[in-house]
Amino acid sequence: MTKIKYLTIIVCLSNLMSLVAQTRMESSLKENDGSQLWLPTINVSKMKEKTPQISYQGKLSKTISIAIFELQNAWRGQPIILEKTRGKKTDGFTISSSERQIQIVSTTDVGLLYGTYHLLRIQNTGIVDKNCSITETPFYELRILNHWDNLDGTIERGYAGKSLWNWSDLPDTLSPHYKEYARANASIGINGTVLNNVNASPEILSDNYLKKVKALANIFRPYGIRVYLSVNFASPIKLSGLHTADPLNKEVIQWWKKKVDQIYDLIPDFGGFLVKANSEGQPGPCDYGRTHAEGANMLAKILQPYHGIVMWRAFVYHATNDDRAKQAYLEFQPLDGQFHKNVLVQIKNGPIDFQPREPYNPLFSAMPNSQLMVEFQITQEYLGFSNHLVYLAPLWKEFFASVPFHTVKAIAGVANIGSDKNWCGHHFAQANWYAFGRITWNPSLSPEKIADEWLKQTFTNEPQFVTSVKNIMMQSHEAAVNYMMPLGLHHIFAGEHHYGPEPWYNMLNVRQDWLPVYYHKADSAGIGFNRSSTGSNATAHYPDSLCQLYGNIKTCPEKYLLWFHHVPWTYRMKNNRTLWDELCNSYDKGVQKVRFFQQVWDKMEPHVDTRRFKDVQTKLKIQSRDAVWWKDACLLYFQTFSRLPIPYELERPIHTLEDMMNFKLKISNYECPTAGFSK
Amino acid sequence: MTKIKYLTIIVCLSNLMSLVAQTRMESSLKENDGSQLWLPTINVSKMKEKTPQISYQGKLSKTISIAIFELQNAWRGQPIILEKTRGKKTDGFTISSSERQIQIVSTTDVGLLYGTYHLLRIQNTGIVDKNCSITETPFYELRILNHWDNLDGTIERGYAGKSLWNWSDLPDTLSPHYKEYARANASIGINGTVLNNVNASPEILSDNYLKKVKALANIFRPYGIRVYLSVNFASPIKLSGLHTADPLNKEVIQWWKKKVDQIYDLIPDFGGFLVKANSEGQPGPCDYGRTHAEGANMLAKILQPYHGIVMWRAFVYHATNDDRAKQAYLEFQPLDGQFHKNVLVQIKNGPIDFQPREPYNPLFSAMPNSQLMVEFQITQEYLGFSNHLVYLAPLWKEFFASVPFHTVKAIAGVANIGSDKNWCGHHFAQANWYAFGRITWNPSLSPEKIADEWLKQTFTNEPQFVTSVKNIMMQSHEAAVNYMMPLGLHHIFAGEHHYGPEPWYNMLNVRQDWLPVYYHKADSAGIGFNRSSTGSNATAHYPDSLCQLYGNIKTCPEKYLLWFHHVPWTYRMKNNRTLWDELCNSYDKGVQKVRFFQQVWDKMEPHVDTRRFKDVQTKLKIQSRDAVWWKDACLLYFQTFSRLPIPYELERPIHTLEDMMNFKLKISNYECPTAGFSK
Repeated sequence: MTKIKYLTIIVCLSNLMSLVAQTRMESSLKENDGSQLWLPTINVSKMKEKTPQISYQGKLSKTISIAIFELQNAWRGQPIILEKTRGKKTDGFTISSSERQIQIVSTTDVGLLYGTYHLLRIQNTGIVDKNCSITETPFYELRILNHWDNLDGTIERGYAGKSLWNWSDLPDTLSPHYKEYARANASIGINGTVLNNVNASPEILSDNYLKKVKALANIFRPYGIRVYLSVNFASPIKLSGLHTADPLNKEVIQWWKKKVDQIYDLIPDFGGFLVKANSEGQPGPCDYGRTHAEGANMLAKILQPYHGIVMWRAFVYHATNDDRAKQAYLEFQPLDGQFHKNVLVQIKNGPIDFQPREPYNPLFSAMPNSQLMVEFQITQEYLGFSNHLVYLAPLWKEFFASVPFHTVKAIAGVANIGSDKNWCGHHFAQANWYAFGRITWNPSLSPEKIADEWLKQTFTNEPQFVTSVKNIMMQSHEAAVNYMMPLGLHHIFAGEHHYGPEPWYNMLNVRQDWLPVYYHKADSAGIGFNRSSTGSNATAHYPDSLCQLYGNIKTCPEKYLLWFHHVPWTYRMKNNRTLWDELCNSYDKGVQKVRFFQQVWDKMEPHVDTRRFKDVQTKLKIQSRDAVWWKDACLLYFQTFSRLPIPYELERPIHTLEDMMNFKLKISNYECPTAGFSK
Repeated sequence: MTKIKYLTIIVCLSNLMSLVAQTRMESSLKENDGSQLWLPTINVSKMKEKTPQISYQGKLSKTISIAIFELQNAWRGQPIILEKTRGKKTDGFTISSSERQIQIVSTTDVGLLYGTYHLLRIQNTGIVDKNCSITETPFYELRILNHWDNLDGTIERGYAGKSLWNWSDLPDTLSPHYKEYARANASIGINGTVLNNVNASPEILSDNYLKKVKALANIFRPYGIRVYLSVNFASPIKLSGLHTADPLNKEVIQWWKKKVDQIYDLIPDFGGFLVKANSEGQPGPCDYGRTHAEGANMLAKILQPYHGIVMWRAFVYHATNDDRAKQAYLEFQPLDGQFHKNVLVQIKNGPIDFQPREPYNPLFSAMPNSQLMVEFQITQEYLGFSNHLVYLAPLWKEFFASVPFHTVKAIAGVANIGSDKNWCGHHFAQANWYAFGRITWNPSLSPEKIADEWLKQTFTNEPQFVTSVKNIMMQSHEAAVNYMMPLGLHHIFAGEHHYGPEPWYNMLNVRQDWLPVYYHKADSAGIGFNRSSTGSNATAHYPDSLCQLYGNIKTCPEKYLLWFHHVPWTYRMKNNRTLWDELCNSYDKGVQKVRFFQQVWDKMEPHVDTRRFKDVQTKLKIQSRDAVWWKDACLLYFQTFSRLPIPYELERPIHTLEDMMNFKLKISNYECPTAGFSK
């Protein structure tokens, strides 16, 4: 053992130097800018003074070296033995501890790395049981981030600065952020990343860009992360001037084959393609009278020999008169069973588009003969950008309450990561990145447990802080739903962006299903979208039991009431309030809740470094003002139809409808969108 | 009688036509724009159908005709006899009623007019007792409005549009507003008006302008209103090129004599001069080494033969190092006894300048041998302009609680009247004009009684409305003090205007006593202006008993605490809160109170015409936002000194100090100043 240990140490230290060189350093917590995320600070001096015994027998891969380095840096307990065993290769691992030592065992290098991060997580969030034996295996094989990053550095729906990928500097210059990004993902089990926007530039498949992609893949590989690309279905035309992109056309197929060969020549472990086809103006097989299946299968067959996959998005809707909530179903359900075995149909959690709250997308219960994956949105496109504190784990949990874990084969999450110092714009938006990773590893983890882990690693273990702030996080999604779109309301956002309220937004020569009025349908009789059998009958897409439940105004869960029904203003809710009064009370509840969050956070000042305390405090002020803005805008506008008074016991509006309707909030990718809201 | 009655009717009807022609008409209350003030609508058709018997024996003066016309128009009761009796001429009257008739008796025509308006007031605010005998005599002989109107149509500290006086059209074109203005003033007993700004343009004394003044005087005369002018002490130089304005200079005296002769030749009942001398850059006797008394007496002697008076303002302060609160006293107290008998020293209610709350100006108890008058401010220069609902009667009442009625010989009020359709900008600002008039007639009237009268005449008699809204009015001043400057804080307004908070406002090369920091003196030790014997010793200007009371931090009324003392942040208040906590609670109380006002007002919707309901509702929204702005600005700024947390049970700030400090609110005389505050 001694010999090996000795060897090990040598490797670690040499290896350490290289890593240190590229890893951001954090010293005092006094001014924490949040760049460290939830990860242990890398501290060379400490490492030198006290080095725990880490031993490993066998070939030292980069991955193993990273594991050893992480333990060297942060482990404060018994000696550790890393051991690779024979058996089916998985990302899983076993940790068994005794007084004398701890053993991490896996059949793969990355399994040992995951075990390492898990052990450190346990250490940093509590006490490591002296005689524990933990076995972890990820529930989902594919745990993927989707970056909506454009090649020009902008990020669609990104609110944390510019893209992490400096395409112009690649492949020669490698930002230290690439490794930090990989380390953060590995620490929570994410094992795949789609680098570019689903509205894909064909350029990404050019020889020039593929070299850049290769450079990133090389950095990510040791962390167990495979690279995927979003592709433009018309790439053969755009890149090589073919006259068609018809998936059944020989030249087209040939073109894709050559392209795929080239990619795998550069990136042997390339993951595959993500495709947004015939959606919101993107090209696709339907342009040539082919089905989504025919398009997806063409690519899938080419990727198969390399074990690559196709993730084919089901997010489609057309400017028809039919309920937008039904369109993905109508187009994809008939294709069930026609997709090739390495095609995954990627479906958003809800039938519309990442609204604050949606019922699950009925496709999940209607394509038993296809491989499905769910697409969550981590970036807060519809939840206050990076200004509002909204913890998303409860929202995702709500999805899994309707859709059994096994129904989906994989999870994708639209990333909220950018060039901001704290990565996500809002310090608490980091929790959504963290939670996404943890849920892809183990969807049965409770949001409380995940929040608890994240808070302890990111801020402090002090029970008073953890309990109070976890409480904020757990209530934050419901609060946002209440001050934005309670009782099943959806998509009543401002026209040019999805930040502020514009329930009145209406325009000529604009697709109906891009207008809030299309979604809330408020009139003198009531409010809500009738999707029952007397309306668009979208309820029919759900299994009978749910079709009954949702379709009947009496049994429909009130949180979905206005999603499925056009409800009279004076309709009696279960608590015996009228719908109008309940609507008013819900908005008010949302506002009061945010004020409560402010109170709790302000009390936390002694427990948090000044910088992050102030950052979060300032964001909560914006959220508090915005919540009132939402309440006033929606209630005063809907009141023009209900003609009913806002219950007098509630706080009165402080804005006039006229002011709010005349006020246009300008939004760009990077500017803080709230300047407008405050003054 | 018949003959006379017949005659009377004829006169009335002819007279009526002329009046009607010049009187704004109001029909339905559906869209009441507030232009009618508290006065009965003039309704010719009604008058024609049912004419009450009004009889009067004797010469029909214009004044008497107006009285008869008003009764014709609005009286709905028994026949009325107007009777002039011999005796000392006063503005007083007696009303005695029986089943058969009502008699109004006075020694003067205007007395009968006042009696008429009083009788109508009783009718419109309740029931006229069948067998009552009311005798009313005004407590103050001079009941004067001061207009800070400039000849260019602007109004200094005016927030209700432009000046009422269309100088360019005068004397040939006479706006109907002139008569409406006179009628409104007569109805509440106001009998004098100073037409122009105390920062007086010499032009007002030019031959050209005096003809215009004469035209107005002619319109006001029948309503018992005398005209006064503010004069520039350097007029002899500015108008006629004299080399001096020294009050002891023969030419100067001669000049004034000729000017006064000219004025009385045009306006036989001209009231006299108002003078702002050696104050804020205005010229005055001190420029020539003469005292204020010498300056005032020179003019007084010239006016005396015409029974004219001089109102000499004591509002003076210099860029010295001595406490501004002491300066008027130091300059005027020594002159006690030196003023000529027709000079009135006009003193603002407080020692600084119309702050939301001030202790009384100690001059009132220090010049026993002079004739004093108090200057109130009706326009809300320091109380939210015409955006905030602040009923001022309680503030004036507070003054009289310290200064006995008899101490002052007259009352002046800086008008809040402009060209706005509703005269005062805010419908409820009309109540301050009304209350001022009523208090000058009878200072012992309670603010409740006055609010009650005004509400019933201006809106409705419905008890639910009157009770609820009176409650708002009665609490409104205390609320404003709380959200602006509680516990004796004063003058922490924005630099360029007096609307918003800028406690941090500081500038080089600016007079110290124009800077908020001079007044609040916040530092790490505490906050407040030490005016006790250990400080500026301004307390010594008060009578011994009060000097003791105010000078001792333990006995000083807490509403004046920071006015007289620099108090440690942790000082224990009577309720055992620390000063800091009490400060926070006071600001919060102010905010919550305005929200309460909003709730009450919204409930009043059924009782108020749509237009005024919406107008007031909108203003209350502004006030509500402003209150939060004040609270956040002051607490967050003062917190940088106290370094203490805002009590966590209180609602948290929603603005950042940085935002507020970087935000410059632009104010002009006419624009709604709050655009900036909302967005």
